[in-house]
Amino acid sequence: MIVYGRNVLEEVLKSHHPVKMVYLRKDEKDRPSQLIEKLKKLNCPFTFVPDKKLAELCGEAKNQGVVVDLEFRYADESEIKGDLVVLLDHINDPHNLGAIARTALAAGAGAIVIPKDRSVGVTPSAVKVSAGTLLRIPVVKVTNLPRTIDDLKERGYWVYGADMEGTSIYEEDFRPPVALVLGNEGEGLSRLVKQKCDQLIAVPMYADIDSLNVSVSAGIILFEMARKMRKVGR
Amino acid sequence: MIVYGRNVLEEVLKSHHPVKMVYLRKDEKDRPSQLIEKLKKLNCPFTFVPDKKLAELCGEAKNQGVVVDLEFRYADESEIKGDLVVLLDHINDPHNLGAIARTALAAGAGAIVIPKDRSVGVTPSAVKVSAGTLLRIPVVKVTNLPRTIDDLKERGYWVYGADMEGTSIYEEDFRPPVALVLGNEGEGLSRLVKQKCDQLIAVPMYADIDSLNVSVSAGIILFEMARKMRKVGR
Repeated sequence: MIVYGRNVLEEVLKSHHPVKMVYLRKDEKDRPSQLIEKLKKLNCPFTFVPDKKLAELCGEAKNQGVVVDLEFRYADESEIKGDLVVLLDHINDPHNLGAIARTALAAGAGAIVIPKDRSVGVTPSAVKVSAGTLLRIPVVKVTNLPRTIDDLKERGYWVYGADMEGTSIYEEDFRPPVALVLGNEGEGLSRLVKQKCDQLIAVPMYADIDSLNVSVSAGIILFEMARKMRKVGR
Repeated sequence: MIVYGRNVLEEVLKSHHPVKMVYLRKDEKDRPSQLIEKLKKLNCPFTFVPDKKLAELCGEAKNQGVVVDLEFRYADESEIKGDLVVLLDHINDPHNLGAIARTALAAGAGAIVIPKDRSVGVTPSAVKVSAGTLLRIPVVKVTNLPRTIDDLKERGYWVYGADMEGTSIYEEDFRPPVALVLGNEGEGLSRLVKQKCDQLIAVPMYADIDSLNVSVSAGIILFEMARKMRKVGR
């Protein structure tokens, strides 16, 4: 997978995804560079190429002189950890996956779970929207989301599904560990997933309006969970 | 401005934006249609055209057989009202404008204020992302955002600016009326706007991460304001 940008490289170097090659702008060679020191120290392969080649590699001229070819590795189901886990029930838009990953990490989530089929996977554009954070949070691909929900319940997680018909998030205590399932952009949660959830919750609307963008909903719900779980403020 | 989709038309009809023409798929003529009854009742001009023409008009084949040509009208500065107002300090991405408008309306905001220059305006794609809600909330275009902040302060609004260095939103009481200023995607709040704000506030992060997508931040902050202002839940 090709990704680009200096911040994204920083995230790559903190992650467990193997780097095949870091491509740097030629003039990086001729000046003192902390970046190169760091790459040497980490035994990370790098090479210098002209601007034109960088733009060719990533399809974007504004790449900050850094393009990375990495081997993205999905995490194993055994790596689902932490007291807050996010499951995505067939999200289609890479922008939503990217924004949700960034928000989930910021709220202290330990993993993101996506189904293998009919779901967006980790793509370069999702990584870009996530500001590289998709490389830092474990992303687990499962064949059967309802079965993963069962597993989480057995492990003691209370599994919430986001659904317009649910009870208000402000009425919930959110005792950890919890999992949050977010549905597809148009369709919401699938029938079986909805049945499997311990409880359905909703963001209350203060105007005559049906729903929010799924990444905005995710932000409001995850931070309300975090506020109560971490006992922050009032 | 050309917009499309059945839900968007519903929003148009609830709004004050004059409709130049509603284009409907030809077969709508040959069956009982509540939509046509409604358009007749509202004295709204409509006509029937082939699918191909609809796709041509809006540049999208998935238009649900409804394309609307309307005259979008920005609201006047005197129409800034309600106990919650959102100001956007040079937002560039129409997706962010659309998602923020939808969230602002859902949180009970009375108006959105954008600057005339170096800011995205209301475009068809912003309307689409907002699910038509950009047509329902007054959008005010001002020449000088810092002056509008001064005006709001004179009218009794407490003006908050979203900034990483601000105090936690969970420490604030948010006594209405309040205004929230959100900064540009990359740069944040501009220097002068930051100075003009009564107070800077931030969403606390639970991991080593700099910031959230601006529309996600907007959602978390606006719904925390609404929760406290409307005294909802605990």
